[in-house]
Amino acid sequence: MNKINTKQRLIDSGISLMKEKGYHNTGLMEIVKAAGVPKGSFYHFFASKEAFGLAVLDYYSDEFEPYMVAILTDPSVPPLQRLHNFFEGGREQLLGDSCRGGCFIGNLAQELSDQDEVFRASLAVVLQRWEQHFANCLRDAIAQGELPKDLDADMMGRFIINSWEGAILRMKVLKSIEPVEGFIEMLFTVILPRSQSISE
Amino acid sequence: MNKINTKQRLIDSGISLMKEKGYHNTGLMEIVKAAGVPKGSFYHFFASKEAFGLAVLDYYSDEFEPYMVAILTDPSVPPLQRLHNFFEGGREQLLGDSCRGGCFIGNLAQELSDQDEVFRASLAVVLQRWEQHFANCLRDAIAQGELPKDLDADMMGRFIINSWEGAILRMKVLKSIEPVEGFIEMLFTVILPRSQSISE
Repeated sequence: MNKINTKQRLIDSGISLMKEKGYHNTGLMEIVKAAGVPKGSFYHFFASKEAFGLAVLDYYSDEFEPYMVAILTDPSVPPLQRLHNFFEGGREQLLGDSCRGGCFIGNLAQELSDQDEVFRASLAVVLQRWEQHFANCLRDAIAQGELPKDLDADMMGRFIINSWEGAILRMKVLKSIEPVEGFIEMLFTVILPRSQSISE
Repeated sequence: MNKINTKQRLIDSGISLMKEKGYHNTGLMEIVKAAGVPKGSFYHFFASKEAFGLAVLDYYSDEFEPYMVAILTDPSVPPLQRLHNFFEGGREQLLGDSCRGGCFIGNLAQELSDQDEVFRASLAVVLQRWEQHFANCLRDAIAQGELPKDLDADMMGRFIINSWEGAILRMKVLKSIEPVEGFIEMLFTVILPRSQSISE
């Protein structure tokens, strides 16, 4: 096993363990064991648990964002359908995880925002970028006449990402996909169509 | 200091410490110290940290729910104004806490839903009751002609509590009240009024 593999295995184990157990509740020895790498290798790559956690956060965000952007900017699909495809993909993923884990970024934000300023600042940037990807997709929908011109895309984008995180949180506690499906239904059958009907 | 005071001081310390630091990240010795009670007294009242955490959860929920119900059922105030008063009160509280801590129930739900089935079940019940208080207030609004008769009060109540939790989560990570204010604005200037305009 080369160095790149060892580091990547540590990061992959960090994502899956911390997503379900949280940051504080996941021990370094647990990560090393799950990764199947020598104990001593951890500090070869990471100066501290915090440095590791931040590397895991960066890796996760760097992997997820292109996936998100690809769906939300797909020129072959109308903008509101792109938005729907993104949430439908999320629903399938969350259901595949048996409504466990939820959103890695939302979990860390809940746990660490009051505890660690470096994490908080990084998490704020990631969520801000996600918000802008939603807002940009809404702007495309406005430009293509799917939504009214006076819709505030930034405000709606912010509301969408925040409400989505809340729906995932409720899914975790209910161990049911219903809150996630309810969010999608509210967004696409009530909130966005009615914002449309106003302008007609 | 009598027994009731000692137990209550432990619970009060548990709420304030766990709200900001989380359940796993708060040590028993820390709680005992913050409560200013003898070390040995903890196990006199609580069999374990889990038993303590559940007692804290019950106490918090038993305190909060009557406050919530009083606002949402106030017969001297029109139903939608009651709902607005509740969220405005929440906004002031969260701002008074400098956007730290957030929602004690939402925090525990995020941290423990995959970790502890007893906590998960209790938290699910609390959030279900909150959802129903919102739905009941929306039903009052329908009955008084403030909202259209065909509005699904249960679905909207669920969406409201979940989105509120998401707004509080984003507030914590941004350390800004803006997501909470944005939620209130979206709910009262877009979502509820436009659900109204459909029936006109």
